[in-house]
Amino acid sequence: MNISILSIGDELLAGDTINTNSSWISRKSTQIGCNVSRQITCKDQKEEIFQALNYLNESQPEYIVITGGLGPTDDDITRKTLFEYFKVKEIFDEDYWQKLKRRFHKLGIEIVESNKSQAIKPSMGETIANPIGSARGYSFLKNNTNYFSLPGVPYEMKSMMTQTILPQFEKNIKSPIFREIIRTTGVVESSLAENISKITKTKHECKVGYYPSLHGVDIRISSISAKKVDHLFIALKNFLGDTTYTDKKNNMEEIIVKNLSRLRKTIAIAESCTGGLIGDRITNVPGASEVFKGGVITYSNRSKQEILGVASDLLKRYGAVSEKVAMKMSYGIMKKFNSDYGLSVTGIAGPDGGSIEKPVGTVFISLSNQETTKVEKFMFGKDREKNKIKTSQAALNMVRISL
Amino acid sequence: MNISILSIGDELLAGDTINTNSSWISRKSTQIGCNVSRQITCKDQKEEIFQALNYLNESQPEYIVITGGLGPTDDDITRKTLFEYFKVKEIFDEDYWQKLKRRFHKLGIEIVESNKSQAIKPSMGETIANPIGSARGYSFLKNNTNYFSLPGVPYEMKSMMTQTILPQFEKNIKSPIFREIIRTTGVVESSLAENISKITKTKHECKVGYYPSLHGVDIRISSISAKKVDHLFIALKNFLGDTTYTDKKNNMEEIIVKNLSRLRKTIAIAESCTGGLIGDRITNVPGASEVFKGGVITYSNRSKQEILGVASDLLKRYGAVSEKVAMKMSYGIMKKFNSDYGLSVTGIAGPDGGSIEKPVGTVFISLSNQETTKVEKFMFGKDREKNKIKTSQAALNMVRISL
Repeated sequence: MNISILSIGDELLAGDTINTNSSWISRKSTQIGCNVSRQITCKDQKEEIFQALNYLNESQPEYIVITGGLGPTDDDITRKTLFEYFKVKEIFDEDYWQKLKRRFHKLGIEIVESNKSQAIKPSMGETIANPIGSARGYSFLKNNTNYFSLPGVPYEMKSMMTQTILPQFEKNIKSPIFREIIRTTGVVESSLAENISKITKTKHECKVGYYPSLHGVDIRISSISAKKVDHLFIALKNFLGDTTYTDKKNNMEEIIVKNLSRLRKTIAIAESCTGGLIGDRITNVPGASEVFKGGVITYSNRSKQEILGVASDLLKRYGAVSEKVAMKMSYGIMKKFNSDYGLSVTGIAGPDGGSIEKPVGTVFISLSNQETTKVEKFMFGKDREKNKIKTSQAALNMVRISL
Repeated sequence: MNISILSIGDELLAGDTINTNSSWISRKSTQIGCNVSRQITCKDQKEEIFQALNYLNESQPEYIVITGGLGPTDDDITRKTLFEYFKVKEIFDEDYWQKLKRRFHKLGIEIVESNKSQAIKPSMGETIANPIGSARGYSFLKNNTNYFSLPGVPYEMKSMMTQTILPQFEKNIKSPIFREIIRTTGVVESSLAENISKITKTKHECKVGYYPSLHGVDIRISSISAKKVDHLFIALKNFLGDTTYTDKKNNMEEIIVKNLSRLRKTIAIAESCTGGLIGDRITNVPGASEVFKGGVITYSNRSKQEILGVASDLLKRYGAVSEKVAMKMSYGIMKKFNSDYGLSVTGIAGPDGGSIEKPVGTVFISLSNQETTKVEKFMFGKDREKNKIKTSQAALNMVRISL
């Protein structure tokens, strides 16, 4: 089943907003076996929207999902444009307007005249309920293609997709595409591909893709045959072993929380160069409070001494970014929070602060439990945010391998 | 000057990867006055790439930037497809291959046979240097449109854009579009638009757009007349006052670090429900170590008591998520880290853990300095990650207003 996506919005073309809607809709549709064939972004302009729709029609998708431009302000022209494209009239929906007034009143928000535009419905076609916002969506049918128009505000779009549109996709799908994912970390793309070439060069008849990111390389396998996907997937998974951290869509932090939870173990984290990112990632996972006792962001030497008990002469002799200090930090945080594991990172995030001996990107990661403390040195690049992300991934991966 | 962007990659259409490349290229091009007219994403398939290029050609852009599909693995077909589209031959570049071998050797990475594909150059057209990766880009000229093909790996693409392509845009631009942005937080889109309608309803001849996100609402003004943009921009800025946190592309954390740094003040942060996100945001800013002394992630009551000195009967009587505890936390963290300001958040991030009295999304944010401690209550929604982001923004905004 083919789906195409049209995102409408000047802010997307100006790059002020990253188009997460398009990838979210694609991910959710792909997960249930749909094929997303095209994504396109166009301006809040009638002619551009018309041309974009014509282009998407070319590949004759069963569904076209349109997001953006349904807000109450003057720059939101999607409703008017689509009504013209589908040759339908505007009808003012008094019932919905009353409902909207009550809803705003309940939330203590003033309803303004411009909100009235959100109570308009088409003379032909349907409205799509918006459980959490004021802008309803619209659906139209033309030449066997179903069109859904949704607001661009991500959480409103998501709730409407989940409640109304994805169930419809699921009901109507005939020949789904099967997909598996294997997520790896710690090996670069070309080496990974070469390592597994013995397996990928066999006659497996699946499509294999490699997707590098700062978190590692994902391998994606797809085919219209579930059996063929399964076969290759198992062969690769067995071959890759510990390089693979999951074969689900999960991310590393979800794996860590799940595994710690299963083992009934707790962790505490001392972060220097990552500044709270590891704690942030862990606490994005619902239920993190079961396993995460807390952490300290020790950006200063003084806090490393006072809170984690790192001796000042250790800091003086080896420097804050050193194997020895990392080890003291992971042990110190474990004791401070009385947790089963203590994780620490200390490094030079950049862009400044490096030396010849310890260039920007030098990071030490240490993990303690009651019996032992281990430490590893990493060399990442010169970019501050990238260093933080790579460090957080390597640190969480150290925990994963040790559990 | 018109620019269009083509992103090639099955992973983008499957939604496994968010298309940050497209928005980055758009943002950088827009900043220097270009107009990005279309963005499109297509599969790693010859016919789809051909059709996408034809569609982009329709609007006759001066430049088309293509990303993705230049890697060393079998699923990377961009080079072959473009060579066919532009009717050029493959030439193996022995010099570049030798250079690549030396570079890999220096980095201690094994060079594999498949990397040879990256040493191919076109018989007509140019290669674009890649300062930090092995895949070079290509440039072609056809019917007055310049085509640039770059790798999809974001940091490689960015370095090539910055080094080669953006300077070329800048040199060739004739009638730039002028833009201003006003970033606001704490007021919903429809109210904001209504509030400023006195100004926006005047004859200003600019395009005005509203862009809501979890961080607030951005107002964007654009026109081919710098004077008209300026006029409206100043009127709006004066009217909005403190609702505006910046009129630059900066984010809130950059404002905070800059302002604290200017005042030579320091801050320490105690995070409960945000789990490290505020620290992470602050430490994304280069130079954060000048103003950020560190923080504590107090996910447990015990850590609130031991590290921040919150009395256990206060926790018992009012609960961890309360005005009183938030105030003790901000005071406690300021004392612990000996900083000028102490910021604290405590809340129920969800999806579980709420009660009738304190539903999921209840958050208290407190800020202390040597003289005083203030606290505010917020009600956010039910989504965990969204709550964390909204909380972090409101907390940083409280710091901004207090400086």
